[in-house]
This record gives sequence, C-alpha cells and structure tokens, in this order.
Amino acid sequence: MTDQTQQFASDNYSGICPEAWAAMAEANQGHDRAYGDDQWTARAADHFRKLFETDCEVFFAFNGTAANSLALAALCQSYHSVICSETAHVETDECGAPEFFSNGSKLLVASSESGKMTPQSIREVALKRQDIHYPKPRVVTLTQATEVGTVYTPEEIRAISDTCHELGLNLHMDGARFSNACAFLGCSPAELTWKAGVDVLCFGGTKNGMAVGEAILFFNKDLAEDFDYRCKQAGQLASKMRYLSAPWVGILQNDAWLHYAQHANSCARLLAELVSDVPGVSLMFPVQANGVFLQMSEPALETLRNKGWRFYTFIGAGGARFMCSWDTDKERVRQLAADIRSAMGTAV
Amino acid sequence: MTDQTQQFASDNYSGICPEAWAAMAEANQGHDRAYGDDQWTARAADHFRKLFETDCEVFFAFNGTAANSLALAALCQSYHSVICSETAHVETDECGAPEFFSNGSKLLVASSESGKMTPQSIREVALKRQDIHYPKPRVVTLTQATEVGTVYTPEEIRAISDTCHELGLNLHMDGARFSNACAFLGCSPAELTWKAGVDVLCFGGTKNGMAVGEAILFFNKDLAEDFDYRCKQAGQLASKMRYLSAPWVGILQNDAWLHYAQHANSCARLLAELVSDVPGVSLMFPVQANGVFLQMSEPALETLRNKGWRFYTFIGAGGARFMCSWDTDKERVRQLAADIRSAMGTAV
Amino acid sequence: MTDQTQQFASDNYSGICPEAWAAMAEANQGHDRAYGDDQWTARAADHFRKLFETDCEVFFAFNGTAANSLALAALCQSYHSVICSETAHVETDECGAPEFFSNGSKLLVASSESGKMTPQSIREVALKRQDIHYPKPRVVTLTQATEVGTVYTPEEIRAISDTCHELGLNLHMDGARFSNACAFLGCSPAELTWKAGVDVLCFGGTKNGMAVGEAILFFNKDLAEDFDYRCKQAGQLASKMRYLSAPWVGILQNDAWLHYAQHANSCARLLAELVSDVPGVSLMFPVQANGVFLQMSEPALETLRNKGWRFYTFIGAGGARFMCSWDTDKERVRQLAADIRSAMGTAV
Amino acid sequence: MTDQTQQFASDNYSGICPEAWAAMAEANQGHDRAYGDDQWTARAADHFRKLFETDCEVFFAFNGTAANSLALAALCQSYHSVICSETAHVETDECGAPEFFSNGSKLLVASSESGKMTPQSIREVALKRQDIHYPKPRVVTLTQATEVGTVYTPEEIRAISDTCHELGLNLHMDGARFSNACAFLGCSPAELTWKAGVDVLCFGGTKNGMAVGEAILFFNKDLAEDFDYRCKQAGQLASKMRYLSAPWVGILQNDAWLHYAQHANSCARLLAELVSDVPGVSLMFPVQANGVFLQMSEPALETLRNKGWRFYTFIGAGGARFMCSWDTDKERVRQLAADIRSAMGTAV
Repeated sequence: MTDQTQQFASDNYSGICPEAWAAMAEANQGHDRAYGDDQWTARAADHFRKLFETDCEVFFAFNGTAANSLALAALCQSYHSVICSETAHVETDECGAPEFFSNGSKLLVASSESGKMTPQSIREVALKRQDIHYPKPRVVTLTQATEVGTVYTPEEIRAISDTCHELGLNLHMDGARFSNACAFLGCSPAELTWKAGVDVLCFGGTKNGMAVGEAILFFNKDLAEDFDYRCKQAGQLASKMRYLSAPWVGILQNDAWLHYAQHANSCARLLAELVSDVPGVSLMFPVQANGVFLQMSEPALETLRNKGWRFYTFIGAGGARFMCSWDTDKERVRQLAADIRSAMGTAV
Repeated sequence: MTDQTQQFASDNYSGICPEAWAAMAEANQGHDRAYGDDQWTARAADHFRKLFETDCEVFFAFNGTAANSLALAALCQSYHSVICSETAHVETDECGAPEFFSNGSKLLVASSESGKMTPQSIREVALKRQDIHYPKPRVVTLTQATEVGTVYTPEEIRAISDTCHELGLNLHMDGARFSNACAFLGCSPAELTWKAGVDVLCFGGTKNGMAVGEAILFFNKDLAEDFDYRCKQAGQLASKMRYLSAPWVGILQNDAWLHYAQHANSCARLLAELVSDVPGVSLMFPVQANGVFLQMSEPALETLRNKGWRFYTFIGAGGARFMCSWDTDKERVRQLAADIRSAMGTAV
Repeated sequence: MTDQTQQFASDNYSGICPEAWAAMAEANQGHDRAYGDDQWTARAADHFRKLFETDCEVFFAFNGTAANSLALAALCQSYHSVICSETAHVETDECGAPEFFSNGSKLLVASSESGKMTPQSIREVALKRQDIHYPKPRVVTLTQATEVGTVYTPEEIRAISDTCHELGLNLHMDGARFSNACAFLGCSPAELTWKAGVDVLCFGGTKNGMAVGEAILFFNKDLAEDFDYRCKQAGQLASKMRYLSAPWVGILQNDAWLHYAQHANSCARLLAELVSDVPGVSLMFPVQANGVFLQMSEPALETLRNKGWRFYTFIGAGGARFMCSWDTDKERVRQLAADIRSAMGTAV
Repeated sequence: MTDQTQQFASDNYSGICPEAWAAMAEANQGHDRAYGDDQWTARAADHFRKLFETDCEVFFAFNGTAANSLALAALCQSYHSVICSETAHVETDECGAPEFFSNGSKLLVASSESGKMTPQSIREVALKRQDIHYPKPRVVTLTQATEVGTVYTPEEIRAISDTCHELGLNLHMDGARFSNACAFLGCSPAELTWKAGVDVLCFGGTKNGMAVGEAILFFNKDLAEDFDYRCKQAGQLASKMRYLSAPWVGILQNDAWLHYAQHANSCARLLAELVSDVPGVSLMFPVQANGVFLQMSEPALETLRNKGWRFYTFIGAGGARFMCSWDTDKERVRQLAADIRSAMGTAV
C-alpha cells in the first residue's frame, strides 16, 4: 500500500532507513564512551577508509550546513574567498553559514552549465581580481550531485582540480547527494574524490536514510589539523556520538547507501520517462541523480498543488523540482506522473 | 542482571530511554515536513509551553554547546561580557564556543560557593570595571543543577535576577541537568525559571535519556527575535527536525523526564549514603542532583580504576566525580560503594 | 607652478589640506587626555551637531573600511543581510570587511542605474526570499556620492527611506564623498541625511583633505547603543584621538570641507567639458561629483599611461576613471584634457 | 617654562615628537600613491629591516589594539588559546579585541612575577588541559616592557621561547613600550626579538612620539602569509599610509626612538629616586622602563589629585602609576616628587 504522505518536495522529508535504524537500536544497548571515543565511531571511520580505499581523516557533524561550512572554514581564512556555482546550496540556502563559520569569507559565484562549473568559469572568477581590496580566492566548492540533479564525471573533477592546483586553490566537495552521483556514474567513491584531486568531501547521510550526522572526510590530511577542536568549538561535537556514527555503520557495511541511491535515482528516471511525451512538459536538466526538474505551465503546477502534491519551484517561472528519496514508492511516482499528464492536458 | 558497561564517568554515557525511543520510532513512519514544520516539533513546543505554564518561544539545537552558546550570543554583543561561575561548563569545557558564537564576548568569572554564584559575587564582577577598555557585562549565566551537583533554590534565583535587573543584565540558565534540579527541589519548572526572573533556559535532554536535541526556551520573547535565523546560520537547524523533537514529546508527555531525574538523583544519594561512614572519604559538595563528588586518597582512586571503574577527577587532587543517570542500576551503585570501601580500607 | 606628482588615480592620493594641518599643529601643543576625552574631540562632535542641525551621536574611526563596516554591523546581526548596489565599495573593494565585522552578514546586490539603487530595485532584493534559509534583509546602504560619480537627490533618498521603513530596513549612507554630494546639490547636510530618513552616515574626511579619521553619525540614536565599545573592541579607538578629531574642527569651522568639495567637483566638470567634443570620447555617467568616467579607445588609454598619467580602469573595457581632489590644479586638468584629445587623435 | 598640562596618567597623553612631525610635514608635499605603495612606507620598512638586522616582513596598523589582535589572530585559530600574564594589556584593557579579531580565541592567564611570566608559569598553563573541550594553547604573548614597568632580559626571553618551541607555541611580543625596554637593557632590537626566538613583534610608536601607526614585524615570515589581506579586511589598511609610515622614518633614521625612550626612562628613575626616602612610600615594582608604581596612603593620593595631578590607580588599594613620556619635563617630575613628599608628610 502506498504511503500517502510520500512527497517529492525534498529528499529530507523521508525518514530513517531500516539499516540505519537497526544500527542505532544496537548502539542503544547500555553505556558507551562519549564524544566519539566509542567503538561505533571507530567502526564508522574504518568503514569510510575502506570504502574510499585511503587513510583519510573522518569527522562527523550534525548536518550539512555545519559540515560544509566547517570544512570550508578549515580551507581558508576570513579574508579569503570561496568559489561556487550560482546554484550552490552554500550560496543560496545556508543563511550565511559559510560566512559565519569562516568569520567573513566571501562566496564568489562562478557561472555554470547545468549546475556545473568548469575550469574556465572557475578561472575567470579566480583571476578577476588580484588586489588586496578583494578577498583572495582560496577554495573551490563543487556540489556532487549538483543542486539541479546533474553529476560531475571523474574527468570533469580532475580538470577542475588541475585548475585548482595551478591557481593555489583547495578543492571541496559538497556531497549531500554524493551517493546518488556514485550510483549514476558507477564509479567508486575514491574515483570521484581523492583520485580526481578532491581535498575534502562532506558525505551526506541525511538525504539518504539517516536522521543526523554528515561525515567529513579529509583526503588531504594536512588540512585536518585540529579539525576536532574546530568541530567542538562550533557546537558540532555530539556527546552521544554513537547515534551519529552507528547509522553510518548500518548503511555502509552492506552497501545500503548505494542501493538506496540507485533506487532514488531510478525513481527519478522513471518520473522523467513517464512524462517525457507529455505535451508542454520539458526537462530543464538531464536527470542524473534523484531530482527531476520539469518546465511546465503555471496553471498545471497549481492543479498539482491542489491535488495535494508538494514540490519546490525555486528554479524560475514554470519550473518545478521533484525529488525522490531512498524510500520513494514507484507507485507514487506513477500517480504523480499521471497527475502531471492530466494537469497539463486540462490546464494548459 | 547488571549491565557491566554501566559507568559513573558521565551521565552522557547512557543511551536513549524507552519513551524517547518509542517516540522516535513513531515519528519514523513515512514522510514529514522538514526544518521544524512537522507536527512533532509543534507538539513538543506545546508540551514545553504547558509544562512551563507560559507562552514561551521554543527552539531546538543539536547539543548543549550550541544551545548555550547561541542563547548567550542572543543576549549580548561581541563587546559585552558574560558573568559565570569559575566551574561553569561554558567557561571550562566548551573549547571557546561561547566566544566563537558571540564573535568575541568575554566570560568573566565570579566566585562561587559550592558551585553557586551569589548576588554579591555577581555584583563584584559586574561593577569591577565600568570603562570602555573592558567588555561591558550584559548577561549572567547560571548552571542548574551546577557542575558540582548543587542546586539553586527559587529564592536564590530570584535574588540573582533582582541583581541582574538592577544592573541591566540578562539572565540565562544552563539547564543541562535542569530536570535533576526540579526533581530535587520539588518545584515546578516555572518556579525555577521565569517566575524567578530567568530570561532564557537551555533545557538539556541528552543527559536525561535523549540522543540529541536540547531545547531553548525564551521566556523573554523580545530576546528571541530572529533566533530561528541565528540557529540556521550556525548549523543548528535540523532538516529532519522530528528526530530531535519527537523524543521530547516522548519524555514530556508522561513526566518521564521527571521520573528519570528523580531516579538518577536517588542513585546519587544512595552512593553518598553508602560511603558516608567510610573512613577517609568525605563529600566535597552537598548531593542535590545526580552527581557525587568524593574526596578520597589517590591510591584508592587508582585501585578503583584498576577495578575498571570510570570517573572524572578534574576537581583537584583526590577528588572524584561519580555521575548517575536515568538508567543507573542501583546494584551497580552498591558494587561501586563496596569497592570504594574496600579501596579505602586497603589503600589508604 | 604645477605639481607634477598630481594624478587622477584616486582622491586619496592627495595630502592633508592646510586647515586640517593647522588644527593638528594646534592640537599638538602639550599633553591632552586620551581616547576621545580631550577637548578637540568634544569640539569636533559639536561642530557636527551644529552642521547637521541635530543632536546626533558622533564617533570617529580610522578609515572608511572600518567606519562603514562597524556602522553596518551595528545595524544588523550576522544572520541578516545588507542590500547594496553592485558597484558599492563595501561589495567590491573592502576585502570582505563588512562580512568580517558583522561576523557573516551577507551583502545582497541590487541593480542600479548610474550607480544608484531605486526603491524598486531594493524592494526586489528585499522581497526575493522570505524563508529562514536565506539571510533576512535588515539594512540598505547607499553611497553618496556613488562610486561612479553620481548623486542621490533628497527626494530619491526619501523615496528609498520610505521603502526601508515599510520593509523594516535600516538605512545607512556611505559618505566617503558626502561633501561632494552636498556641494553638487547645494543642499544642507541635514537635508541629505536625517531629514530624508537616513539612520546613520559615515562622513568621509580622508578623500577631502584629512590623513585619517572618518566620522560616524547616528541620527537614530537608539542604534548607537554601546557603539563606543564596538569601536574599541574592533581596534578603532585612537588613544591620541585629538589627531583624528582636530582636523575635523579645522575643516568644519570655516566650511573648508564644502569649499574643497566644490573645487574638486568643478575640476571634474572642467575635465568633462574640455573633452566633450573629442571624437570617440564619451561620458559613461553624469558628472555630479569629483569623478569623470570616460569611454575611450584602449590604445588612447595606453598612450595616456605612457605619458605618465595614472587613472583606474575597473569599469570595463575602454572605461577610465579620473578623480579630482581638494587640491587638484586646474592647469593639470587642462594638461590631461589636452593629452586625451591628442591621444584620441593619434591613437584611435 | 614648564607645561602645566604635563601629566603622569599615561604616556599616550603626550603629543607628536618633532622628528615625527617633520617627517609628516615632508610627506605632505603633493600627491603620493595610496595603500602603502608610496615611498615613505617602503623607506620605513627598510629602516626596520636595518634596525633589526634581518629581512623581516613589516606591516602597519592604526593602533596597538589592532596590531596585537591581528598578530595574535595570525598565530592561531579561533579554537586555540593565547597564554598571557594576568596584567597583560590584551587581557585587561582591550575590550575583548583579541577574541574579536580571532573569532573566539580564549586568553589563558599565566601567573607572573613583577609582571613577567616564566617558562614554568607558561608550562603550567599550557599543559593544564590537553583535551578537546578546552582551547588548545598555540601562542604566548609577552609584553615588553611589561604593564608594570619591568623588562624581560634576552636570557629570559630565550628561556621562554625555548619552552614555546618545545610545546608548539608561537611567541608574540607586545612592544607598546619596546623602545623603553631597549633603552633600559642597552640591547639591540634584534637581541630582544628574533635572536631570542620571538616570532612576531608589535612595535609601538604611539607612546613614543607618534600620532598613530604601530608596526608589526614578522621575523617568522611564514606566519605573515596574506597578512596584508588580514589588515585590509580588518579595517587597518590606511589609504594615506604615508602618514603612518613617514613618522617612523622620522624617529628611526637618527635614533630618536631610542633617545626619547632613554629620556622617559630617566624621568621615571628620577621620580623613583626622589621619593625613595619618603616615609610610607614604596616601590611596587623595579623601575626598568618609563613607569613608576608607588604604594602610598590613600589620603596622600587624594591630596595629590586635589593638587591637580593625574595618575592611574588600577593596581589595587594605595597603588599609583606614574608614567613618563618622550617629552616629560624633569622639572615637572621634581614638582610631583615634592608634592608626593608633602602629601605623605601631612596626609599619612
């Protein structure tokens, strides 16, 4: 039976997946050491190192806002700047968190195509100003998968990291939907990160079946110096850390993270396919992860809303974002597709 | 049967209590709105307003570091100062978090007796410097129960708040163990807070059976202006907020919060009683909450450690802190007491 | 005889005017109280109150970077945002100082015409986002005269302040060249500020004949609460304050500030007139203050540079900024105009 | 004739010395490049490098608050801590500036003898806490001469820097009265700084005959990376920099800095000698720089105040600080001494 609360507004409307829940339940036996000195946290860190095939430094933060902002703050000083795309979540939806955690680092917006920056667009921003009256570029942050549901290939990341290293920039990856990118590309996590020149990854768990607890992985370990103090001071060190780390053990140990991402992606593709022949509906971006961005008529969107569907429309007039998640029911996708078809048929 | 992992190092070694867990499980059905627009968060806020018998503003943060630091930052500017006792957690154990969140507010240490500041000790600090070269005092923060296991009475709080209002200071309460104070005094939460002049309370859940999610209650609602933005920017707005708020519903709706605090307190009293006649052991502070601070011989402490007991010794030479929690097993308390007696008998 | 070092790169290439110098010399007699408790500082503040015909609060900062950033920080919190034009100095040339002093307030860029924002362009930015994931607009900052040498009329300022008050925004004026605006409009300082709804003005002295020492005037005195502490903490309280304030007495007491601004403006107009009929040269913006922005050919600019002229070209290809100052020699203006004519004649 | 305004409250009550004034006057000829690209700034930096016999990095800030706070911020991150003596100006008189510029670094107070920390007192603070819940010590800051008028010998500094390097701490020197220390010890500036292991010196000019403009010298050049951006962002880059740097040329080129410091020191010694046999008056600290700290009776202090003398009494009951400066008149010192003798004779 279909869960009628299932919506497409955001992948963070979903709950905790069974594997994460089971690990939390197991972790909830008796007492354990606090502040990350517990066995679950050690196990989760080991899982990450194994998964990424490298001895990276692993930290946990409560949410993506903090994980990304703390990582960026570790990569630059307040008088430096961070280059991001104009759709980057750190620019558009964090209420100035990167500026707050870094005590003033400015975000510089690079142009992008389908949500993706290019070596050239980064270079233009990085070299635009070289004088002391403007914050010195020091970091590039990519979102993988992007906020518009597209994915950087390993080659694209490598080209960007080459540019970064040439220009003296650190490379950060906001991986709120990193799982979905891995699932789409069929690449290993290592291929999409350190092997392609990424210095730090924020690996999102919340949008893929966890309650809280994003992981921060430093492949460039020099950049991780005293990062544990940074997390503590910034209110991101959980006393009962095991409840952040055990769920990671749960979803990493049997590749649930990947299977769920594959499922969410396939739901998105299904939606795209089902509406591909609906007159007046067009895809705004390639569907490479778990989001579908449709251009439709405003009346049709209103019709959908009236039928109870929830989705975001921040992309501009007539644009609608439909997000799928680890637990999206394909039957709901079909219902949505049918309603879109119906709305466009009657409402255009 | 006794849980051998049960320790007395910290009350945050304990896990999630059944009521909190059950509420999380119930909240984990299907999708729900994110960022606190869900029903669980609304219900939790209502529970707080009912419990405190007032229409306060309610927010949630991931942990106590952030809850207290954000609240203090809301009560002063960077060039102001915060008066606290020399044992205050914000001074001794937050790695500079209050200074970070406030962008530089200095903590000024007032003398205390048994962990408690007095109107006089606050006044001395507040009036010590009145010139522009020193940060202007703007906030007083009390810890209730204190870090040494003592409790402020409503009359003591009222005397302090009178001093605060006379001197133009806001009054904040760090209630990491507020439940234990209520349990000891038999007072209503309202009597210990706004009725006694407290402006803002950080009500701790983690040490009383929750995984994450401290509540911040503004009784002075003017001080809460745009506090939701402050939380968001500082990385303290959970996307899946229901997992922070539902546990509060779980422990508030049938007074589990109070029963567990009563239990923890009674375990602490039991320990104190059981060792009260042990030669060479003395209480460092009155046992009014869930902590027992014993003065013992160093060799005896070493003996206890060798037997596998865990406890903190930050109070000075020969001092040991034993914390009880919501799930402390009284049999373990008796084992500990017996081992203390034995250690002192042989080791002194 | 003409001073060959005289350039048109910036009005801050000029030195200290005689009136300011004389006041400094007079202030340099014997000892005086420090940190602004001296008579010169009191006199300067009184001069400002008289000039502005109101009992405003007056502070001094070392430079414009700090004056503007401190004032903006006083008008908002870190999770708020500041609306400015895309050419605003705070956005383009302060290396993130506003973000630093405010601990993260984001600058939101409004579109402008000839460097001036409009009620409509402000409204669009202010109302674009109303959700918690984006910094809440709280301040509008105007530059008077603007960075492209144009001037807001009292009516334009009033229309903007009406919009501000409707939307709950404070209104700040960056008056690095406020004198030049007064000189152009023939308005009183009061008409251009508090009578038109401005809350805070940063009145620049450096570009008008002083060495250091911008004045910050709060017409809305509530916003000035503890601003003296803010200045002190931020490293902007001069111990020997008299050397910042005495020059103000010097240039305010006999209207030297206005005469010098009139002179600089007239030099700019002269330059514009002298090149108005040069083929291929066009004005990029109306000349209303002390700057002239010319569109010329790139080879001509190169020719000018080779002749030793200094000017800025940040306005885009072929654009050049020529700034006049309090001591600009009209003979040098004529030399420059002649060289422009010559360069265009030969180099186009 | 004696200047009756001459006081002993602070050495920053004095004005600008002739050499500094003459250099400013010379710098005030015509136009010059802004933001430190002028010849005076280059010359001043060269003078410092020659004086210190090393190729150090030289920067200028408007005042000591900013110079010290920026330097400390460059030596640590927000979650680090700074060890200073309990009388350190950064701790007692900067209104939280170090915490503000560093975004939250905590100052840890080490015990001192006659205002001077020792390797042992530093070690105790540095090793007191090694856990993540307390800011990690990263910098030691010495004041030379100290706030109580004493001086660290090269050997004492070396012993401290050895401790610093052993413990991974950077060493900063607050040299607001560095000149006075050099004058007392007869050491070269190099011997008192980098040759003894100091990483960064803030060399004060204001208290020794300048209006504004402290110099910041990085002997450890790695620590100076992008420090120019830091200064700019923090509102400490003067546009008309020549007025900060030219005075340095003026006082450095003919050793005026040293002669004035010798004079101020000799005035202090004179005062101490003149009252050495006054019954009831005792020196609180050795007189090694330009300050004299006398223990007297409260009524005598009141008598002095009534006679118009100004001095500070922040040292505790009956303690009074008398500061001499570059222009102190020895006749005034004798008048003061006579009045002290008289006040003690009649008032005790």
